[in-house]
Amino acid sequence: MENKEASLPTHAKDNPNVSADGAPSKNALKKAQKEAEKAAKKAAAKAKEAEQKAAQQAQAAEDTATGNYGPLPDDAVEITHLKKLGDDHVDKEVTIIVRIHNSRSQSAKLAFLMLRQQGKTIQAVVAATGDHVSKQMVKWAVGVNINSFVRVTGLVKKPDPPVASASISNLELHVTKIYLVSSAAEQLPMQVKDAERPPPAQEKEGEAAVDAEGVPIVTLKTRLDNRVIDLQTECNQAIFTISSAVESLFEEYMRKSGSRKFNTPKLLGAATEGGSGVFEVGNYFGKSGFLAQSPQLHKQMLIAGDCESVFEIGPVFRAENSNTHRHMTEFTGLDFEMVFNHHYHEVLDFAEQLIVFIISELDSRYKDEIAVVQKFFPRAGDFHLKDGKALRLKYFDGIKLLKEAGVDTTEQDNYVTDLTTAQEKKLGQIIREKYDTDFYVLDEFPMVVRPFYTKPHPTDSKLSNSYDFFMRGEEIMSGAQRINDAAELEASMRAKGVDPNAEGFQDYVNAFRQGCRPHAGGGLGLNRIVMFFLGLDNVRQATPFPRDPQRLRP
Amino acid sequence: MENKEASLPTHAKDNPNVSADGAPSKNALKKAQKEAEKAAKKAAAKAKEAEQKAAQQAQAAEDTATGNYGPLPDDAVEITHLKKLGDDHVDKEVTIIVRIHNSRSQSAKLAFLMLRQQGKTIQAVVAATGDHVSKQMVKWAVGVNINSFVRVTGLVKKPDPPVASASISNLELHVTKIYLVSSAAEQLPMQVKDAERPPPAQEKEGEAAVDAEGVPIVTLKTRLDNRVIDLQTECNQAIFTISSAVESLFEEYMRKSGSRKFNTPKLLGAATEGGSGVFEVGNYFGKSGFLAQSPQLHKQMLIAGDCESVFEIGPVFRAENSNTHRHMTEFTGLDFEMVFNHHYHEVLDFAEQLIVFIISELDSRYKDEIAVVQKFFPRAGDFHLKDGKALRLKYFDGIKLLKEAGVDTTEQDNYVTDLTTAQEKKLGQIIREKYDTDFYVLDEFPMVVRPFYTKPHPTDSKLSNSYDFFMRGEEIMSGAQRINDAAELEASMRAKGVDPNAEGFQDYVNAFRQGCRPHAGGGLGLNRIVMFFLGLDNVRQATPFPRDPQRLRP
Repeated sequence: MENKEASLPTHAKDNPNVSADGAPSKNALKKAQKEAEKAAKKAAAKAKEAEQKAAQQAQAAEDTATGNYGPLPDDAVEITHLKKLGDDHVDKEVTIIVRIHNSRSQSAKLAFLMLRQQGKTIQAVVAATGDHVSKQMVKWAVGVNINSFVRVTGLVKKPDPPVASASISNLELHVTKIYLVSSAAEQLPMQVKDAERPPPAQEKEGEAAVDAEGVPIVTLKTRLDNRVIDLQTECNQAIFTISSAVESLFEEYMRKSGSRKFNTPKLLGAATEGGSGVFEVGNYFGKSGFLAQSPQLHKQMLIAGDCESVFEIGPVFRAENSNTHRHMTEFTGLDFEMVFNHHYHEVLDFAEQLIVFIISELDSRYKDEIAVVQKFFPRAGDFHLKDGKALRLKYFDGIKLLKEAGVDTTEQDNYVTDLTTAQEKKLGQIIREKYDTDFYVLDEFPMVVRPFYTKPHPTDSKLSNSYDFFMRGEEIMSGAQRINDAAELEASMRAKGVDPNAEGFQDYVNAFRQGCRPHAGGGLGLNRIVMFFLGLDNVRQATPFPRDPQRLRP
Repeated sequence: MENKEASLPTHAKDNPNVSADGAPSKNALKKAQKEAEKAAKKAAAKAKEAEQKAAQQAQAAEDTATGNYGPLPDDAVEITHLKKLGDDHVDKEVTIIVRIHNSRSQSAKLAFLMLRQQGKTIQAVVAATGDHVSKQMVKWAVGVNINSFVRVTGLVKKPDPPVASASISNLELHVTKIYLVSSAAEQLPMQVKDAERPPPAQEKEGEAAVDAEGVPIVTLKTRLDNRVIDLQTECNQAIFTISSAVESLFEEYMRKSGSRKFNTPKLLGAATEGGSGVFEVGNYFGKSGFLAQSPQLHKQMLIAGDCESVFEIGPVFRAENSNTHRHMTEFTGLDFEMVFNHHYHEVLDFAEQLIVFIISELDSRYKDEIAVVQKFFPRAGDFHLKDGKALRLKYFDGIKLLKEAGVDTTEQDNYVTDLTTAQEKKLGQIIREKYDTDFYVLDEFPMVVRPFYTKPHPTDSKLSNSYDFFMRGEEIMSGAQRINDAAELEASMRAKGVDPNAEGFQDYVNAFRQGCRPHAGGGLGLNRIVMFFLGLDNVRQATPFPRDPQRLRP
């Protein structure tokens, strides 16, 4: 164990007292005292180091593998990524930088390590059989704290039988060198292997769930509290590869169409889309600022500014005290807005094909990642898309389907409220059964449930040129044709109880006085698309560091 | 003129009283009154409409072109984008949707219109020579308010001589049909043609500048106040095409390297990187929230979470009262962070090649846009990149160059302060003269001027493994190797007067207790790259809706 201690990176000990070098000195006395303390600590550390070195040297006298393990040497060797390891590496030597996932000492001369990189695992054998590996080296390797990073060189072999417990089961590594890159603490708040088990499906705060074998399951709360460890699992690595891919596919589709990416301001001078749900920035140079609840007004202003087709990927802030599986106070919006030539269905067609493109390309380009997620969330890989296209229904045809299934839709029939979450989910089930698809669109929503900037239907004043997109019965996008005439917009605002002359609306309404082409658009939630596509239980599982009314960390 | 009035879109008049239809009624009385008022207005509008119709019909009796102009008919014709118009369209009929940039009546039978789409202009001739175009139609076309959108059908012709005042000078349109798509108000706060002249180079608040001919120049403030009109110029369209391209090239380069895109939270539970420069969200469900000043801590936590290489494009918030040409309170950060195998120069090489890639690809893919910007900002297109690679100097070699040029660098020699803005600019000039390049990198900054998470130089404790990138002598990126050991990080924080146990730092420091590979990264400012690459005067010119201590709108 002394051996291991000595191999820890030493930079913490001889870290220079940087602030003393020429920095403006404020509390000279305090600093001097601190420095004295530091010097004392340093001296103690040095003494300890010398002692350890002596012990190490005594051991080294009989160690045939000195230099093949311990502190990282300063040499630039070629590094192979674990993901790239394949059959053509068999009988060749490779060097990898990996975490120790698990270690097991078989005897003084033999140890098995499970090594991990980005969630993928491979077994490594440390066997003191020749001059290259000694008993001391075996002991050192087993003594390295779990989750530490090591640089391992070894011969790639084909194990017979395959190593069932490793995700790369058809290869193993016969270690010739192993060095410590970064040490993990002995005690971690959570183990990666615990986070690798699926979370309890329906959890309550503080509830201690157990799995089928009675082993305690780490709750989502604990996982999110320790997100840095949680992210290290194979499943989470796959989820965030897919999340990154959804953004990429969205952008690829938008750019191919000739659209340009813009970044509209998140800091606004006035609360616009509903005062209660807005976060206030109290100290904006003597004024109050507000966080944008969507890029809606500014992306329309870009359209009025002749940008014709724009998209944005950025944070959306909602100060709503909604504590559900699919609400957060901050999420990533994928927004687009574009002019059309004749009818808003040009844009609706475009948006449907966007989602179809994303889903189809995920299915074909990310098979492996989907398969990994499926080990933990069985519904991943089960997303149906009938005939590779969207199913589009009119809103009231959706209501009819619900009615036929015995759902009470009186409020919807009377234009009182929008579909409830329960109704949306039910409709998702009905549509999956009837049409074999998990992606559908409702068009022509009642005007009364849509925001003031929505264009009314040209012939039925109770309806509007607006649409919602659903995946597995839950909303992923809301969109519409927008009013592009200032006078019509002002009338619509007044009809909804919004003052067009209020601060924050003037610039917006004025934008349309300067002439603006008819346009439509929509706003997608990235985290929701990932969640519903993969069949995750909670939108937080599709968010690296989620934010909700209870959570502002890590 | 009555004719024109009648052709205005009528939806504002017959906009249904949507809120009355089934909406939960709160102030029934008030509503009833409003409805009565509305009904009266509607009746009046109807009467007016009928009167106008009658007048119109009387005129139409002798009009051979009825139906070829006026309100937009409900037909789906094929639309051509003005940008796509070329020689193969000559003698063919096309339909375009464009703004009226200017109109001039030559006689009762002949008018010239300058039409504009996304800043590009073409001349159109409306000549009452046959049955298709009447005198009434010519009059109507000239009467449409400037900046209105019209749908124009016409024959493409080659004018001889070319139309010098149009940006598409080698083609013109002989109009056969013209309809109003969206009307602009008669009075606009600013004309697009005014915004098309370069802004005054050095302007002061409220200063009325004039150009060489004595014509008043619209100030940057007026332009930004009326940004929707300002964005319509050819120059701004080109600037934002390039801005969108910079993001695209950054993303292309990062993704090709295998990096993944993440969105880290902008809402934080504690002020981390310096308390004074942070915006506070006062109403976060009974707590205080803070806006992220950079994704620094979270992108490092992603690295500790085994994400290996990450990038982010998102807003960065700075509550600094800096009123300069290159500071804003919100800008778009292009951030990246990645592990390396042996030395942080692996990442520095990567980052230098990233910038070289962006600059080279802009030069080759966006020649036309750069040429447009150059008409207004002469330094666009003049960005030098010697031998297609970055010039890398050590920080103190940069100081030496300044010293040789007679600049006083006493403070820098004594590790008191970083380079001043004036020194940076001077160094940029020296390097341009000496090395013929506008992109250079300074490496090994003094530790004392860098933040606590910076990795010290391995052998010279006064220096650090950190670098800044400069374009035309102004900083576009700051980056470094980061400390990846918790104990070393805590010591560095204490040395900088930062409490590692403070709320908001605990999760960050703990991330490194779980083992973390050595890593480095950097943060670029999108708006600055665009500004310096194109040689703009002000970073606000490279920002669609800029935010600064004085500006929270539009």
